[in-house]
Amino acid sequence: MLTPIILSGGAGTRLWPVSREAHPKPFMRIGDGKSLLMKTVERAQAVCGDCAPLIVTNRDYYLRSQNELASQEIKPQYLLEPVGRNTAPAIALAALWAAEQDPDACLLVMPADHLITDTVSFHKAAEHAATLARDGFLVLFGIRPTASETGYGYIEMGNQISQQANAVQRFVEKPDAATAIAYLERGNYVWNSGIFCFKASTILDALATYNPALYESARAVWNESKADGDKVDLHTSFSRLENISIDYAVMEMAKNIAVVPGDFGWSDMGAWSAVADVTPADENGNKVHGSDAIFIDSHNTYIDSKDRLVAAIGLENMVVIDTPDALLVAERSKSQEVRQVVSRLKASGHEAHKIHRTAVRPWGTYTVLGEGQGFKIKRVVVKPGQSLSLQMHHHRSEHWVVVFGTANITVGDTTTLMTQNQSSYIPIGAKHRLENPGITDLVLIEVQCGSYLGEDDIVRFSDCYGRM
Amino acid sequence: MLTPIILSGGAGTRLWPVSREAHPKPFMRIGDGKSLLMKTVERAQAVCGDCAPLIVTNRDYYLRSQNELASQEIKPQYLLEPVGRNTAPAIALAALWAAEQDPDACLLVMPADHLITDTVSFHKAAEHAATLARDGFLVLFGIRPTASETGYGYIEMGNQISQQANAVQRFVEKPDAATAIAYLERGNYVWNSGIFCFKASTILDALATYNPALYESARAVWNESKADGDKVDLHTSFSRLENISIDYAVMEMAKNIAVVPGDFGWSDMGAWSAVADVTPADENGNKVHGSDAIFIDSHNTYIDSKDRLVAAIGLENMVVIDTPDALLVAERSKSQEVRQVVSRLKASGHEAHKIHRTAVRPWGTYTVLGEGQGFKIKRVVVKPGQSLSLQMHHHRSEHWVVVFGTANITVGDTTTLMTQNQSSYIPIGAKHRLENPGITDLVLIEVQCGSYLGEDDIVRFSDCYGRM
Repeated sequence: MLTPIILSGGAGTRLWPVSREAHPKPFMRIGDGKSLLMKTVERAQAVCGDCAPLIVTNRDYYLRSQNELASQEIKPQYLLEPVGRNTAPAIALAALWAAEQDPDACLLVMPADHLITDTVSFHKAAEHAATLARDGFLVLFGIRPTASETGYGYIEMGNQISQQANAVQRFVEKPDAATAIAYLERGNYVWNSGIFCFKASTILDALATYNPALYESARAVWNESKADGDKVDLHTSFSRLENISIDYAVMEMAKNIAVVPGDFGWSDMGAWSAVADVTPADENGNKVHGSDAIFIDSHNTYIDSKDRLVAAIGLENMVVIDTPDALLVAERSKSQEVRQVVSRLKASGHEAHKIHRTAVRPWGTYTVLGEGQGFKIKRVVVKPGQSLSLQMHHHRSEHWVVVFGTANITVGDTTTLMTQNQSSYIPIGAKHRLENPGITDLVLIEVQCGSYLGEDDIVRFSDCYGRM
Repeated sequence: MLTPIILSGGAGTRLWPVSREAHPKPFMRIGDGKSLLMKTVERAQAVCGDCAPLIVTNRDYYLRSQNELASQEIKPQYLLEPVGRNTAPAIALAALWAAEQDPDACLLVMPADHLITDTVSFHKAAEHAATLARDGFLVLFGIRPTASETGYGYIEMGNQISQQANAVQRFVEKPDAATAIAYLERGNYVWNSGIFCFKASTILDALATYNPALYESARAVWNESKADGDKVDLHTSFSRLENISIDYAVMEMAKNIAVVPGDFGWSDMGAWSAVADVTPADENGNKVHGSDAIFIDSHNTYIDSKDRLVAAIGLENMVVIDTPDALLVAERSKSQEVRQVVSRLKASGHEAHKIHRTAVRPWGTYTVLGEGQGFKIKRVVVKPGQSLSLQMHHHRSEHWVVVFGTANITVGDTTTLMTQNQSSYIPIGAKHRLENPGITDLVLIEVQCGSYLGEDDIVRFSDCYGRM
């Protein structure tokens, strides 16, 4: 029996403009419409059966993750970080969480933002890794290189430990191009996938040995943290833990290490070129995710656009990523440099690195359709049975028109049931609430009027999602 | 005294997605924010002084052109075609129009969708052309080639007629690449600009000589057409005139031809590469028209985007043209092939070849902000003093929220003055009218609800713009 630990951290700045601070990589939908997080949970289930996964993620993504995985029968548990602190602290706390039940619990640690298409061989490898883990090994999953990648860390494999596993000769940093070619040719180098298998007690012992300071402070954080339903809110002292990867903190020094090499159809989805790689192509190598595209005299070009028409003429090896407020056009081999765009946006205070025009909330979504001097227009979608907080604004009034579904609209002391083609007016200062009592989505158009229209002009009187 | 004749025809399919059937090339704004039509009218004024220009255009563009040129002190006259029929019929009718006042009127014929940056030398050339025209010449303006263009017709110049003009040796069709290089080297070849100067009587005589059938039928159309204020609505028999250029119909056969060569900073704005050519560049040759752009590792790339952020990585010699509903990414040298995109869109019945998300009306504009099952949201902008028709819809009701300015809203027999933050409801079947009595723009958000939301669900009872 394996316990899946899913690390749902990565912001994925290299997948801008689809990934944003408020819409990180694990929530991105790839190919079949499922998010990377959902795919990871499904993979965990395929390998670990009925065991509920533990998802380690930021507090801000708790409700979002719950919603994303609402359809899952086996409800995940959550370990909520106040801030991101790399893999060593996350794994340490996950191991402490598991050890509380069973120090010999066998953990399968997986990032939430990777893709694995060959689940069958991954499953086999995981079973073998579990055997080694039970014998006290710290097991790493190595990916057999298919190209001379310079973006990954490599592991040089040593002697065979078993039929499917090797000892680790050494860890090597991201190599230069020539070295990467040499590694590819030699055959005993694999990519470090960031997927691990070990007993809770094994990794905690190793941590106590090789990084006792981190071990002690992680224990202290754990003792201060409290469980609440399906989640453990990690104590704010978590933010003082060392920002360090499990490779640096433990793996590169530990002796009882094994690597299980494989292919698994693995991709770290590290850049748009990687996303393009996993998308089916037409006869010219062109690929489309989303809406209409017209290719003329173009080859090996990837277009991602949700609802705009894109015409490509004379493009070779390009990616075109289209979102409602930002567009990326990049030479495919340079798609790593998207990080620079995000840094520049951050530096200039541009919002497009942080938020999308559509914002996800526990109750549904809203999309800004337009704004101007003194007004803003939103399309608000409330999921069945959900409800916004009872709230009030100091600087704006709101006009609501129900265009689909049914709403319970409270203004002051009066609640009215409204349906399509009915409207309501919320004056400045009036307490109000919007609720969907129905069994279909509720869609409502909101026209705000006022001198200040920021999201922070909100006074909440009560909220189902604890946002007070 | 020259009479400017402005041919405002060209759809400009090669400038899609900015130019569309409902937003043809003369209305495109280049660089300084002025439309090509406005620039052409200003050029006409610089050369011809107080003489009101005659604009030959399609009926559908009459109100739009009037609006576009509303700021001009000298009001243009209009010759309105029921359909486009190339330059020979347009020039024939313009000459008949001019000849009615004065058969010896000297006409300066200019397309409305070209750019001329060196107005001073164009002015000089036009003055010289006028002298020759008065002597009975049909004068063409030739552009000295700056590159071996294969997209233009050429004129081989013969002996000098005057210090600034030559006879025409022959007209030559668009050459292949090798021939174009030879023409460029020889120095006595010029591009045929489509700009002409002649007396009304001279061109009519030439037409009667070389194409008597067209001449006779053009006369018949003219006799059936009637003037009304600043416009002459050409009789529908115009549509039966031969679809032929003035070059084929007259110039290639006439003997009394002169060509005035020059540079004039002329561009036919025939493709996005030409538009890019006239836009100032940064130190990497990159050019931006409109909003935010981030260039990383990119050169000689032109980005046109009104309000979205565009990030370019590793682009060389590209054009990126971004509009609310369609995006073009093209290799610069292949930007002519945009025509293929438009053909494909036409063939598949896609609306993006025809209309923009913002539609221009005589009273202002409307923009579709979003739509869904059973609803559509528009931002309606009404200019001061303007009014929509008194109308009714069979299949939709409308919710209006005034967000800027003041509106007179008539529903049934009641008219109410409304301002910011007030709303009104128009039930299905109710006669209604929207009017801006104020002196600023009126901005209104319209939420339509109904089973059918097409623009053709409109019954007009009265309209200020004759659209009944």
